[in-house]
Amino acid sequence: MYEDLRNSLESIFEERLFYKIEDRISYGYDGSFGQHTPDFVVQVKSAEEVQTVVKLANKFNVPITPRGASTSLSGGPLPVEKGILMDFSQWDHYLEIFPDDLLIKASPGVITSDIHKLADQYNLMYPPDPSSSSICTIGGNLAENAGGPRGVKYGVTKDYVLGLEIVTASGEIINTGGNTVKNVTGYDLTKLIIGSEGTLAIITEATLRLIPKPLATKTAMILFDDLYTAGKSISAILTSGVRPSKMEILDNNSLNRVEDYAHLNLPREAAAILLVEVDGHPSILDKELITIKEALTKIGVDKIEIAESAEEEEKLWQVRKLVSPAIVKSGYTKISEDITLPLSKIPDMFEKIDKIKKEYDLNIVVFGHAGDGNLHPTINTNMRDQGEVGRVEDAVEEIFNYAIALGGTLSGEHGIGTMKRAFMTNEMGESGVLFQKAIKQALDPKNLLNPSKIFPIAGEKRLVLRND
Amino acid sequence: MYEDLRNSLESIFEERLFYKIEDRISYGYDGSFGQHTPDFVVQVKSAEEVQTVVKLANKFNVPITPRGASTSLSGGPLPVEKGILMDFSQWDHYLEIFPDDLLIKASPGVITSDIHKLADQYNLMYPPDPSSSSICTIGGNLAENAGGPRGVKYGVTKDYVLGLEIVTASGEIINTGGNTVKNVTGYDLTKLIIGSEGTLAIITEATLRLIPKPLATKTAMILFDDLYTAGKSISAILTSGVRPSKMEILDNNSLNRVEDYAHLNLPREAAAILLVEVDGHPSILDKELITIKEALTKIGVDKIEIAESAEEEEKLWQVRKLVSPAIVKSGYTKISEDITLPLSKIPDMFEKIDKIKKEYDLNIVVFGHAGDGNLHPTINTNMRDQGEVGRVEDAVEEIFNYAIALGGTLSGEHGIGTMKRAFMTNEMGESGVLFQKAIKQALDPKNLLNPSKIFPIAGEKRLVLRND
Repeated sequence: MYEDLRNSLESIFEERLFYKIEDRISYGYDGSFGQHTPDFVVQVKSAEEVQTVVKLANKFNVPITPRGASTSLSGGPLPVEKGILMDFSQWDHYLEIFPDDLLIKASPGVITSDIHKLADQYNLMYPPDPSSSSICTIGGNLAENAGGPRGVKYGVTKDYVLGLEIVTASGEIINTGGNTVKNVTGYDLTKLIIGSEGTLAIITEATLRLIPKPLATKTAMILFDDLYTAGKSISAILTSGVRPSKMEILDNNSLNRVEDYAHLNLPREAAAILLVEVDGHPSILDKELITIKEALTKIGVDKIEIAESAEEEEKLWQVRKLVSPAIVKSGYTKISEDITLPLSKIPDMFEKIDKIKKEYDLNIVVFGHAGDGNLHPTINTNMRDQGEVGRVEDAVEEIFNYAIALGGTLSGEHGIGTMKRAFMTNEMGESGVLFQKAIKQALDPKNLLNPSKIFPIAGEKRLVLRND
Repeated sequence: MYEDLRNSLESIFEERLFYKIEDRISYGYDGSFGQHTPDFVVQVKSAEEVQTVVKLANKFNVPITPRGASTSLSGGPLPVEKGILMDFSQWDHYLEIFPDDLLIKASPGVITSDIHKLADQYNLMYPPDPSSSSICTIGGNLAENAGGPRGVKYGVTKDYVLGLEIVTASGEIINTGGNTVKNVTGYDLTKLIIGSEGTLAIITEATLRLIPKPLATKTAMILFDDLYTAGKSISAILTSGVRPSKMEILDNNSLNRVEDYAHLNLPREAAAILLVEVDGHPSILDKELITIKEALTKIGVDKIEIAESAEEEEKLWQVRKLVSPAIVKSGYTKISEDITLPLSKIPDMFEKIDKIKKEYDLNIVVFGHAGDGNLHPTINTNMRDQGEVGRVEDAVEEIFNYAIALGGTLSGEHGIGTMKRAFMTNEMGESGVLFQKAIKQALDPKNLLNPSKIFPIAGEKRLVLRND
């Protein structure tokens, strides 16, 4: 069987088929944990090729795992059940803008920042901007419903996808949605497929919506003496009548990591900083920052620094971008969490994490997209210290359960993958998981598309950090 | 069986169960066509009551049709297969705002405009605003994914729903989504259920997202000498760097109907008018209208009138609101279509409709939400004139097929229901329809929830205007 499948794949893909162990191993990881070696790797470049592979997978009953640039932090592109790894990274040649329709169409391997650049040339904007945008593919963004800092005003990937071309588990090519923002013709398959992590269908093309690019931006840095007040300031700003375009928080620990790493003369003593960007017509931005300042004064916050030049603004955003590299630099393993909370509950979560940090004796850094409640508590750990790894797993479980208890969710933008599948039932209950499973079963009855993702695995009760 | 079901329902609902013919008949219509008399009507007021009815429906194998205020223009709340009509209009007592979280939670019978009013008290806004908002229920808006004029900037109902409580076809109460904008925990059931027209689950509560209310609005009326240029101006405005909050078009025919009806001193000779609203900080709105003016000058459009007072602004929007009443006033039957197009294709559609109008000798009025491509070609017809009804059916079919050929869709905000089910395959192909049916089959295997909606019925090939 293995030989037959190899021959069939080779006849189509030739040098775009990989089956040597050294090639296969290099396709077995992502930005999370675990190493899983696929049986075959194929580099697809058309919907028809995807269709052919899916039909072979059906014939030989082997699973398919789609993979973009593999920057995922949740295990989405890991070929856990082996089979065929479908590499989309080489399929990046279709990228077309329709400026009068405010649309872009793209093949799945296009790098996200290339979409940003193309839109920008026409004074248009594609708002979703995950941290990895200069290296990740739009296909991966679609599969995981990627977010980024503009979520507070502009939403996430899903909010900018009008239509998809997909290959179903049985190998049919179909189109979902279309070219219009308003579309109520049948079920919203587009938004069902986006964020389904490659488990319901394989995306082969996307129609993305653009918006007019804001004329200008302005950024302020707000300093806090305690994390609780920093948390409270988020609702205060968002109910002031201004809609910030970005609103990012860094706790004292994150701030000091960045300062150690990049020496930017940051306020090391601040309990937290909030970076707030407003965008729109240049004549309005100062007024909006004054409105924000007034709202903060009411809750006793008065340390606000406004970037007065493009360079100063750039420097502030540099701080945010350096958080992850600075943490990685420390040499230990970085475990990035992704809980998301109702805005008023952010202060409670900060208090909880502070407690957990002490109780479990862990190095936890908190930063994230404060404006949409999406926090990234990030733990630095020595994976060789089995005792510490156990404490990390306990701590993460406690953070997850507290997020759920506060009315929040396990994952705001990284996805469930393998990393959080053990906690799905905690959030949505047994019936909720079964309802989702019914959809998976209906659309992929042979469980060929990215198996072992999202849904709980019998017996697995906690975070999967080790490679089994 | 009938007696047993009646007794079971009566023991729960008492005076909220209706089974006399005169009561049942009055629940058999909506804003579209056809009269279908249910066997029973129950007025539900809790998720547990819905659950009990669903379990009885399973036991007795009878269908359930949910109904809000029945303003639907596509047949959603018509009890086509009889059975139990579930009236949500009396379940309007839960409406709670969480201003610090920018959320509202509501029971399905709450009137949409009550949500607007509550948000407004906190300087917040719930943007979706269907024309019927003062009489329709939020449950109906969710089932049909209602739109309205703010779609161009703010999107539709779906974009403001973070979570739902639903009762499944087997009678389980589950929660989908949550309280946060970012949420990638499992499949997006929330957006799958919204717009599914009551065919996949029954909605019993919604968590709605609010945004800061814009501080001010300003409106301009643009007059055109020909429809083609009016169509072209839409892309010109939307690529000028300004994001209008509303952008509505009325053709000469609509304009004259309103003038006949309300005597507002409108420019009867204009081929079309465009009403454009910008919103945001008051100091910026004039500048934005100037930017729009400049963009229009470039394509030879120069007749722009700016409302200089709140009264003038109110009067312009009155014009738009009076289109439907003015058409209804003519005494004939009003057939409202709802095609939606890529923006650059609007001029083509205007030309096509003009041709169809002449070819089929019909009275067609065109107006709609130009900024998101959502047009409402509306036909006035004498339903007793069989020849004319036949021509209407032919004309509508031609409009649908042309919309699809242009990359548009059958329905932007009214839904498919019974009215457009015959055309589903034209838009999404056989495989697309089967993919959707697989979801319906998986989540409602006994086909109890609002049967005979959305999906094509064997042998039915065109618009259903007559009551068979």
